[in-house]
Amino acid sequence: MVLGVRLYSALYPSWGPVCLLPRSFASCSGNPASCCTMPRLGLLHGRAWAVLFGQLRRPPGAVCIGAVHSHSQVAEAALATQLKPHQEKSNFIIKTPKGTRDLSPQQMVVREKIIDMVVSCFKRHGAKGLDTPAFELKEMLTEKYGEDSGLIYDLKDQGGELLSLRYDLTVPFARYLAMNKVKKMKRYHVGNVWRRESPTIVQGRYREFCQCDFDIAGQFDPMIPDAECLKIMCEILSGLQLGDFLIKVNDRRILDGIFAVCGVPESKFHAICSSVDKLDKMSWKDVRHEMVAKKGLAAEIADRIGDYVQCHGGVSLVEQMFQDPRLSQNKQALEGLGDLKLLFEYLTLFGIAEKISFDLSLARGLDYYTGVIYEAVLLQPPAHAEEEPLNVGSVAAGGRYDGLVGMFDPKGHKVPCVGLSIGVERIFSIVEQRMKTFGENIRTTETQVFVATPQKNFLQERLKLIAELWDAGLKAELMYKNNPKLLTQLHYCENMGIPLVVIIGGHYTGKSCG
Amino acid sequence: MVLGVRLYSALYPSWGPVCLLPRSFASCSGNPASCCTMPRLGLLHGRAWAVLFGQLRRPPGAVCIGAVHSHSQVAEAALATQLKPHQEKSNFIIKTPKGTRDLSPQQMVVREKIIDMVVSCFKRHGAKGLDTPAFELKEMLTEKYGEDSGLIYDLKDQGGELLSLRYDLTVPFARYLAMNKVKKMKRYHVGNVWRRESPTIVQGRYREFCQCDFDIAGQFDPMIPDAECLKIMCEILSGLQLGDFLIKVNDRRILDGIFAVCGVPESKFHAICSSVDKLDKMSWKDVRHEMVAKKGLAAEIADRIGDYVQCHGGVSLVEQMFQDPRLSQNKQALEGLGDLKLLFEYLTLFGIAEKISFDLSLARGLDYYTGVIYEAVLLQPPAHAEEEPLNVGSVAAGGRYDGLVGMFDPKGHKVPCVGLSIGVERIFSIVEQRMKTFGENIRTTETQVFVATPQKNFLQERLKLIAELWDAGLKAELMYKNNPKLLTQLHYCENMGIPLVVIIGGHYTGKSCG
Repeated sequence: MVLGVRLYSALYPSWGPVCLLPRSFASCSGNPASCCTMPRLGLLHGRAWAVLFGQLRRPPGAVCIGAVHSHSQVAEAALATQLKPHQEKSNFIIKTPKGTRDLSPQQMVVREKIIDMVVSCFKRHGAKGLDTPAFELKEMLTEKYGEDSGLIYDLKDQGGELLSLRYDLTVPFARYLAMNKVKKMKRYHVGNVWRRESPTIVQGRYREFCQCDFDIAGQFDPMIPDAECLKIMCEILSGLQLGDFLIKVNDRRILDGIFAVCGVPESKFHAICSSVDKLDKMSWKDVRHEMVAKKGLAAEIADRIGDYVQCHGGVSLVEQMFQDPRLSQNKQALEGLGDLKLLFEYLTLFGIAEKISFDLSLARGLDYYTGVIYEAVLLQPPAHAEEEPLNVGSVAAGGRYDGLVGMFDPKGHKVPCVGLSIGVERIFSIVEQRMKTFGENIRTTETQVFVATPQKNFLQERLKLIAELWDAGLKAELMYKNNPKLLTQLHYCENMGIPLVVIIGGHYTGKSCG
Repeated sequence: MVLGVRLYSALYPSWGPVCLLPRSFASCSGNPASCCTMPRLGLLHGRAWAVLFGQLRRPPGAVCIGAVHSHSQVAEAALATQLKPHQEKSNFIIKTPKGTRDLSPQQMVVREKIIDMVVSCFKRHGAKGLDTPAFELKEMLTEKYGEDSGLIYDLKDQGGELLSLRYDLTVPFARYLAMNKVKKMKRYHVGNVWRRESPTIVQGRYREFCQCDFDIAGQFDPMIPDAECLKIMCEILSGLQLGDFLIKVNDRRILDGIFAVCGVPESKFHAICSSVDKLDKMSWKDVRHEMVAKKGLAAEIADRIGDYVQCHGGVSLVEQMFQDPRLSQNKQALEGLGDLKLLFEYLTLFGIAEKISFDLSLARGLDYYTGVIYEAVLLQPPAHAEEEPLNVGSVAAGGRYDGLVGMFDPKGHKVPCVGLSIGVERIFSIVEQRMKTFGENIRTTETQVFVATPQKNFLQERLKLIAELWDAGLKAELMYKNNPKLLTQLHYCENMGIPLVVIIGGHYTGKSCG
């Protein structure tokens, strides 16, 4: 039925990726162009004919039925039904679990593009892929997440091992390294993690969400892998065109040093650290109140902390802290400051230093960080020129965790690690929101050709033809009806944005062409 | 440091995808070829020089250090450490949960290729992507899987909803359709499912495994979507080059008809059906014993069933069953036979009829099937010419489930569905086994260029150069050391199969080139 899709593409490359010929072409004349420049339907003397239309440049005179490729209304209608299922059935039991959602075809397309872009960046930096099970032995996850451990999903004890769903991709990676005695590895991992958080759907936070992680394990010279992690974050955030962003950097040792020189008792380091971590959402006044009223810290100690953690700046702030009379007495803080200085040197070589801010308020919630920590935030241009850009939320974060692998190793052998995690769910919401604002439509299928007929009893011919298209590697669809209406078929093409239609008919008894 | 990667590629396209120039090129001479045809290292008068080697065609006389691209031993060693972690630490607690495993970078590469191939086939047939949460409300999964329901993983009751991990991708799809009142949809879904089975790792069965599903929901003319599902299975199994295969086809209505005309009480249909399902692993004698001794069926009824379920053949067997004096009296069986006849007609048009066998022993375990069912098995060429090909296991299966969506709909509205699931884990094992047998190595990274230096104190130059490569979209790596040895760097390239190395040095005081 179809004569040499490849042959014809070669003959008429300007016609685009797909060209179809009537079955009768070979026996009709030597010149395919004359055969196809038929002035009306069914001109050919064979049993079947083909009409090409859509995005192609057509040969002069070729028949065009209907305008294909404006599929705005239908896509919108589909979006409307598929994006908001939750509101409609409050009296039905049928729903997804709290804090989770189905991903519609539209969302899947956006997601695929973003993840492809992130993964290609990870591969550009030489990372290998790795996957770990969705659940771990419960004990693997205990004592790794500090205050957040209560958010871990446990599986029911149905006999056998006690299991928990993974809470992040970092702890399973550390478990993998220790279990396989791997001392050096650069890997990426894209996968879902689960946290029993109170979901605030509007902000793009779910109980099941996807993380894209990149980590470098191994003993290397200081700050080189750390700088690469920050470079990767910059490449991804620039590549996704999410607008202006800033990466806050700090070091756990500097924070600990600050707490020490300010007089925080060591037993309160963790508690005070998580208060500091709230400075991106709360004012210093409120954080100070929490420290003093809830965590029992002396007011003057809190004030001393406040002098430090409200500072942020570039590499000059690092120098300034080196000169700080109190902090420069603390060994840990000095180590952290030394590393940050080196880090800024490398970031300058990478051409990204202006995207980085040394921010003493950055604390990061997770327990396992031991050195440099960082968090990327998107900036919104301020409404008024004199204002600072708005922080519209964290989209990537990470840091150094040199002790985590050792927690799994029976002999405590350490494997230093540094890594980052891209908060793709947040990015999905931003991109979806942007597409909605700009009224962009998304094709949810990639179909290139639709096989249609205006005639009855043509199912057999359609099935034979489409099998040839599939076997030639073409993306093709037809209507699952014995005798569909031509208009219905063309309407489907228009709705789905299918650029090509082959219309077959037959038993025409008129004159030959040419 | 690097002068116009794109510029130089344009000048010398035959050099391959990456061309690097010494910094001094621009000021050296007008002719890049003469600059690079240096007879030995460090000929250029500038601060840095570049050597290209590996898969590129080099300009005559260009320097080549070491042979890159034979990385057999290291890949094997890596495979050995990463594929067999379980045996080594029987006395440690550190492990993955029973029946689960990590996927090593080598396995991830194989997996990615296979899944890409499967998904591209699904897209060729016009399917949209869809994703559902890893867990569902427990009640969504109850009464869907028959005898297998005991294998569902439940989550611990930590307050809130009772949840279970998904057992397949079909039930969540049906839940999605009912929840969103979708009446028509062609979707694919690639995702993990979880079953508390006794894992027999050797056979490639795990408690966590990946499924690749394609389903067509909607009211259409009979057997057209069903035939497409079988076509898809053929395309995928042929495309993956797994050797010869056969797709067994049957119909639940024919099986029910057989049970009815043989005198099985209706209450025993399900139990007898699951006995029949074991005929691919057990002899008829053993299955008959189970029916009679364990399930209390009269021996003569079992014998009558045996006469039917041991039959298999092509479309002629369908005709033969139409003539069967007993079966032709059963309305259900006649419906099934009529549909199978039509199905074979379409399969002939698709050119795949010879791959399909009407097999009356095929029963499929899951409860939700209502019509045609199918299962693809790989065939091994027999050791002796007179023997039949060996069945080495099922790799794809599916069928029609017209009642499942209605079970979720509060008003019981039905949406007829038909679909298939590719057993990719089984396919992964086969491909891995084959690669092992043939000693094939897999690159686990895609790095194109490695930035090396033989000189000390060149980290800054390396970092600047590699940032330029990354920014130009090149996949590049360097050693995270201040002063790595050149041999170590080249050895890494060889081990990792990196085709290009840029070696930079500087402060050369010799004569200019050209």
